[in-house]
Amino acid sequence: MALLTDFGTEDVYVGVMKAVILSEAPETHLLDLTHQVAPGDVVGAAFRLWQAAPYLPKGVVVLAVVDPGVGTRRRAIALELDGLRCVGPDNGIFTYLLATRRLSALVELTPPPSGVSNTFHGRDLFAAAAARLCSGSPLKRLGEPAADPVLLPLPRLSVDRASIGGEIIAIDRFGNAITSIGAIRTAEEGIALTPWLPGCAEARLSGVGFHVALSTGESVPLARTFGDVPKGDALTYVGSDGLMEIAVNGGRAADVLGISIADPVELQAL
Amino acid sequence: MALLTDFGTEDVYVGVMKAVILSEAPETHLLDLTHQVAPGDVVGAAFRLWQAAPYLPKGVVVLAVVDPGVGTRRRAIALELDGLRCVGPDNGIFTYLLATRRLSALVELTPPPSGVSNTFHGRDLFAAAAARLCSGSPLKRLGEPAADPVLLPLPRLSVDRASIGGEIIAIDRFGNAITSIGAIRTAEEGIALTPWLPGCAEARLSGVGFHVALSTGESVPLARTFGDVPKGDALTYVGSDGLMEIAVNGGRAADVLGISIADPVELQAL
Amino acid sequence: MALLTDFGTEDVYVGVMKAVILSEAPETHLLDLTHQVAPGDVVGAAFRLWQAAPYLPKGVVVLAVVDPGVGTRRRAIALELDGLRCVGPDNGIFTYLLATRRLSALVELTPPPSGVSNTFHGRDLFAAAAARLCSGSPLKRLGEPAADPVLLPLPRLSVDRASIGGEIIAIDRFGNAITSIGAIRTAEEGIALTPWLPGCAEARLSGVGFHVALSTGESVPLARTFGDVPKGDALTYVGSDGLMEIAVNGGRAADVLGISIADPVELQAL
Repeated sequence: MALLTDFGTEDVYVGVMKAVILSEAPETHLLDLTHQVAPGDVVGAAFRLWQAAPYLPKGVVVLAVVDPGVGTRRRAIALELDGLRCVGPDNGIFTYLLATRRLSALVELTPPPSGVSNTFHGRDLFAAAAARLCSGSPLKRLGEPAADPVLLPLPRLSVDRASIGGEIIAIDRFGNAITSIGAIRTAEEGIALTPWLPGCAEARLSGVGFHVALSTGESVPLARTFGDVPKGDALTYVGSDGLMEIAVNGGRAADVLGISIADPVELQAL
Repeated sequence: MALLTDFGTEDVYVGVMKAVILSEAPETHLLDLTHQVAPGDVVGAAFRLWQAAPYLPKGVVVLAVVDPGVGTRRRAIALELDGLRCVGPDNGIFTYLLATRRLSALVELTPPPSGVSNTFHGRDLFAAAAARLCSGSPLKRLGEPAADPVLLPLPRLSVDRASIGGEIIAIDRFGNAITSIGAIRTAEEGIALTPWLPGCAEARLSGVGFHVALSTGESVPLARTFGDVPKGDALTYVGSDGLMEIAVNGGRAADVLGISIADPVELQAL
Repeated sequence: MALLTDFGTEDVYVGVMKAVILSEAPETHLLDLTHQVAPGDVVGAAFRLWQAAPYLPKGVVVLAVVDPGVGTRRRAIALELDGLRCVGPDNGIFTYLLATRRLSALVELTPPPSGVSNTFHGRDLFAAAAARLCSGSPLKRLGEPAADPVLLPLPRLSVDRASIGGEIIAIDRFGNAITSIGAIRTAEEGIALTPWLPGCAEARLSGVGFHVALSTGESVPLARTFGDVPKGDALTYVGSDGLMEIAVNGGRAADVLGISIADPVELQAL
């Protein structure tokens, strides 16, 4: 089972959730994606699930709990997306997965007869449901059929003749900024926009070079990897998720360049 | 084996402790409760062990190492508490468990003939002892029978006609403050004090409403869950451990309200 | 498999690397050494691998990725050191292990035919190679024979008639400072320098007492363990790795004493 939460690791909340899982399904292998999503950052969680999903072992169950609406009327759901079974709150945490995979089943979880607390459904509702999936229980047994999972807005992405506009969607531990611009380097020194999200047009930019223009006015040249520019210099490159990123070799781009999540960026040909 | 330490995760200390365990008992499943107890915070560790214990898989061994007195004359112990076997320093780290469970066995650990370092008994003494329990060794084999484990003071809790006095005993990753007041909501809109610690009287408060008075003079109204109050508002509620907590919807109560551990709180009927 | 990286735990990078490993070799037991090496701190990583290595279970594979030169011409390697098989970038991350163990095999990893990203070889190259070792693949199958792994400078250590000079090589989570001076306490109240690194002379200091002189002018007396000095006082002692350390009982020596990595220290007899 792959776990992603905003519970942090300073409390015993993750440990308790795992204890519930192992009590229900002792043979489960647990794979921590991260527990350090910023508290309540559903969009950040949704993006990270998308990042990890292509690499998960076949048949793995995903338990995702970033749940600021715990105890309110938001639904608790389990769903299947191109064979990937997921459990979590219905608050948009599966937005990126839903945007890029086919939804084949969705149920609203039936709470256990023993009742649940008002503030820790990760422990009382989601963990046990995910464990039951790991033990072989079919998804349909976990609750009633449901429809229309919550979808949050997807990031901006616009294609122009000579530029592609996007935004910063994540900043990682290294201070690297990940943009919404999916791209590949083409053989003939160009850049092609990849349709990684629905509604993305395919597009091709050609030029003698490329840079990303930031909202600060700064311009960051295209390179292949960190070490291709001098220490302390900024670069943009096609990151390991297939998205354009902005980094500083040996430094923290977010700090050095003053970049924040949701800032607009524009990939331009020279 | 469930592990709780103050070793943090930036060094290899936890990894080394696990390596020793897996060398001794390769089939052990390791369950991290937390390794981020504040350095030397034995009371915080004791509370977190109490939080996690009810959810641990049957038969699990608990290894708990927050050990500022390492290398001094403090004893190293293993004990059994209502079937839960624990290993750690005898410095009060099992206070909450001892207060709420029946002690059925206690031994002082015999150091290995190979000797131990003066500053890392987690690696040299506790890990191997806990691993031996996981491998099937009876607790009595780990050392000599002992008595009178160290007990730290339990948190304040006092019952009055119209109020219950307690204190803040933990602040979690979300900035939520957990109080020493064990409570359940009663059907008839009242609140009943639960005897979660020895010496707690049962008590029942009734009123048209409730709030918790802080030492800052601020008063926080009772609600059911975070989303029941507007964003940015404070609330008190029966938390997932059965203790009254204080939170701010979408914020950090400890920061917003200026709450610290050991601050007095008073649950009052209106 | 034992893992050490600078990926942190706030992103899904470690989770993705583990997902790749478990997809390739599902039965692998994963042992996290740490993922919080400072970003790009190859020397810190090298030291931590040395700290952990003696305790690792027999046959374990070590995957170590602190890789600021990812995507450049630095080699990707697998090597065997006294039976310990390691995989990682050839940037000096194995310096301490190479200095203290016999190298019996070294290969330069052959990239997979599917290609690798320019910025995440942990996922695309190292994880799969390490997983193949865990699945029983011989090290030689992972690539072409190679020689001359990169070695970084080892820490300073100098022996004088009445003193031993070294430097601070690590500061741990507790603020304890670990020095490059390997030592044991001898029976007759002396201190003997241990040849933990090649080129270390054995040496013996005798005196009525010992202290460590810091570059700040401060002098820290020798003790056995933290609790041997009053709360708030500094001490030096033979740490659990066999290296002299400097700590403050109940405090953070690095902060209290103003100690930084690479600061010179001198162990002196009184």
